Amino acid sequence: MFGQKLEEAVKDVSGGRAAILMGFDGIPVDMYTGETELDIETVGMEFSVLLKEVRKAAEMLEAGSTEEVTVRTEQMATVLRVINDEYFLALALDTMGNLGKARYLLRLLAPELRRELS
Amino acid sequence: MFGQKLEEAVKDVSGGRAAILMGFDGIPVDMYTGETELDIETVGMEFSVLLKEVRKAAEMLEAGSTEEVTVRTEQMATVLRVINDEYFLALALDTMGNLGKARYLLRLLAPELRRELS
Repeated sequence: MFGQKLEEAVKDVSGGRAAILMGFDGIPVDMYTGETELDIETVGMEFSVLLKEVRKAAEMLEAGSTEEVTVRTEQMATVLRVINDEYFLALALDTMGNLGKARYLLRLLAPELRRELS
Repeated sequence: MFGQKLEEAVKDVSGGRAAILMGFDGIPVDMYTGETELDIETVGMEFSVLLKEVRKAAEMLEAGSTEEVTVRTEQMATVLRVINDEYFLALALDTMGNLGKARYLLRLLAPELRRELS
């Protein structure tokens, strides 16, 4: 059920490669990898650690709870969206992909998944 | 000299609050804080640690070097742009501010500062 939504999001974003719904403990709930060779599970795991660090930093800065993080490297862009205290979404795309659209779609998807996961 | 460029960037972004040019060791080179009460130096220091973690994660994922990270919380958005191995830029803005414009301006500013810092 989550897989289909992840698939729709990936296919709806120009340059979309893969998406994952994951717990902050690094355990995946569902994912969609399409035809990419990208290991989205490893990406999710690496970034779950990071996202926890961001949340800690944001608390230190009294900036409220963390909603979204994007990471852009030479070869990949990734949007991370916090769903609740337990889960987050990650969508990876090509560097030339539409990062803005990816952010928009995850922002829409997050409250939907929040309801289903609670 | 850097301060003026940081000021221009902050003023050019709707919702722009403050910007800083900082070393990855957490030591600031220059900053512009405008009229905000935001402590951009502390923001930069917190996120310098984070940016180092992102770079490590990106290397692990063989995703190439890290170019940009954005962090969005309930009360603040921050764009971090890597200049080179030693320095990065951070621009903080309101959550309703123009994150896309901030990303664009820092992307333009980074190579300019890279030349001047080397």
